[in-house]
Amino acid sequence: MTVGILGGGQLGRMLALAGYPLGERSVLLDPSDSACAGHVAPLIIADWADERALCDLADRSDVVTFEFENVPGKSLSYLQNHARVAPPARALEVAQDRLHEKQLFERLGIQTGPFAPASSRDELLEAVQKIGLPAVIKTRRFGYDGKGQALVRNDRDVQNAWDKLGSLPLIVEAFVPFAFELSAIVARNWQGDVARYPLIENIHRAGILRESRPASPKITEELTEQAARATDRLLKELDYVGVLTIEFFVTEQGLLANECAPRVHNSGHYSIEGALTSQFENHMRAVLGAPLGDTSCHVRSAMLNCIGQMPDRDELAAIPGVCIHDYAKSPKPGRKVGHVTVLAENIEELQDRLSRARAIVENATDT
Amino acid sequence: MTVGILGGGQLGRMLALAGYPLGERSVLLDPSDSACAGHVAPLIIADWADERALCDLADRSDVVTFEFENVPGKSLSYLQNHARVAPPARALEVAQDRLHEKQLFERLGIQTGPFAPASSRDELLEAVQKIGLPAVIKTRRFGYDGKGQALVRNDRDVQNAWDKLGSLPLIVEAFVPFAFELSAIVARNWQGDVARYPLIENIHRAGILRESRPASPKITEELTEQAARATDRLLKELDYVGVLTIEFFVTEQGLLANECAPRVHNSGHYSIEGALTSQFENHMRAVLGAPLGDTSCHVRSAMLNCIGQMPDRDELAAIPGVCIHDYAKSPKPGRKVGHVTVLAENIEELQDRLSRARAIVENATDT
Repeated sequence: MTVGILGGGQLGRMLALAGYPLGERSVLLDPSDSACAGHVAPLIIADWADERALCDLADRSDVVTFEFENVPGKSLSYLQNHARVAPPARALEVAQDRLHEKQLFERLGIQTGPFAPASSRDELLEAVQKIGLPAVIKTRRFGYDGKGQALVRNDRDVQNAWDKLGSLPLIVEAFVPFAFELSAIVARNWQGDVARYPLIENIHRAGILRESRPASPKITEELTEQAARATDRLLKELDYVGVLTIEFFVTEQGLLANECAPRVHNSGHYSIEGALTSQFENHMRAVLGAPLGDTSCHVRSAMLNCIGQMPDRDELAAIPGVCIHDYAKSPKPGRKVGHVTVLAENIEELQDRLSRARAIVENATDT
Repeated sequence: MTVGILGGGQLGRMLALAGYPLGERSVLLDPSDSACAGHVAPLIIADWADERALCDLADRSDVVTFEFENVPGKSLSYLQNHARVAPPARALEVAQDRLHEKQLFERLGIQTGPFAPASSRDELLEAVQKIGLPAVIKTRRFGYDGKGQALVRNDRDVQNAWDKLGSLPLIVEAFVPFAFELSAIVARNWQGDVARYPLIENIHRAGILRESRPASPKITEELTEQAARATDRLLKELDYVGVLTIEFFVTEQGLLANECAPRVHNSGHYSIEGALTSQFENHMRAVLGAPLGDTSCHVRSAMLNCIGQMPDRDELAAIPGVCIHDYAKSPKPGRKVGHVTVLAENIEELQDRLSRARAIVENATDT
């Protein structure tokens, strides 16, 4: 069968690569002729709104999925009339609007921090008053990797944030003091089977994910149960098919949901080598209607993102247990150009290898 | 960089797939327009002897390698004038002729069973007399998967073998009673670094590999040392670059070398998920001059070949720890169309999963 993928970035690339061993092929659609997934599978270069190209994608695919969160909802709705689509369009719509997302969390009893919408300057001041300072002001749509948001500590910050972001509808969120961040990744297929990956501890810097540690010692059974309740509710509410991610803050009040992503997630890249079945293969299995694969991890692992440009490959390759993923993208400040998964038999070995790999990765990182 | 690969079968397919995460691309050459590696990387469809096509391959590649043992030596010699080639042409020549192979083993002190060449009926009778019955009569060249050979127990068998195979130069080998078969897979890069995989126990039926078990409990330290001495000598003698395999019989006299393959090997497919670095990635690293990857195995694994046609995918996918590799080839009796790697945390779990997977695989197997 052939899986159509909206988006030709690294997530599409890794999805296409995960499909081949299953005997499946992919075809991608992306507006950029340099989309890195185009190296590994056929790429339709077209605008998201190009209906002829969307029809072409649908014609060539048995099922269509997406790897890019900012695909216009309209394109997906159009596609749904021509092809089987998963995850459902509603999941994309929810994830595209921070206000709808938080409201859905609230309605489903998924704990989240205080928030309030703001479409005008007056509403913003009112919302800040209600939420209190410090707070985080974000655009409701099109934010990623820390873009489209501002941490505000005082009235002048609020004014500056309005000047910078106020042309778009906003949301004000309480600044949540958290112990650490984690993500929950789950998969659900058409049959309704669910597979859960172990929770992952995530470390961000300058708004960009830097490091992910599945099965970190900080992750308790209680956190795992709380996260499972949240993902279960969201999967059911959305009648979801595919891989779904929720990012949480771990606070004194327990888990607070920050956001969800209706797709494979950067924090799950470790699973290519670190789990028996990767998030990419399980997404493909899910949308194809195959049984989901085992998400157990028989090896210790951690993932480092490569930001801006790839580190020296041979230096990395010389460290035992280091798996290199170069997305073959051109270098650019702040761009995710690759990742490295470090494998080891035990925690001590992992720490040792990780600190060696981290030094090489950070040496090449620009931010 | 781009790696040119002579041969577009499943080995080329898995080599190309192993290159992508390293940020490398492949281009393949194969006479067949349905070569299954052509699904995952650009394919030049041309005869092995087509010098223009060979030049095209060389032009598009930084280094050229091969996945197919019966590439004409002439093609490789021609390519060597236009590109960097690894493994060396001499390794291919040795592996293509069972007599030269056995003579080289003998010269290097790599123990092998008794053998004698035969180019005429008289020489054959003489060779059989010298070696004794039972014996195995094989064509010196172009044999694979049990093709081009006959087990002979009496004079009539010898006569039949001559009638069937006598148009080609032959070799007579003693029939070696063995406890089991194993393979040693090693990699060596341009810098001369060597990486060794654990020995693999192999089970054949009707001349075709059916099952491989890395780190089988039958494999002793003594066998490992004997095999390492043999592979070391061969790597050094050939000034080898790439992955090299030697297949051995385990007999009361110790290891007897049966044959070598100057390429990634079917018995090493388990390493995609079962070892920290797969044989395919290590071959790519070796020919690209990168440091070799860690060959440790942190999980129990075994591999089953899918012969003739793929078994039911969803039945297999429902078994935890089962990794499916469908080469997307059309079904044909005796053809290797895919393999399955079974992963588990311990031997008992492995045996359980393996017997479930084996039942499904054998149900679809025609021979």
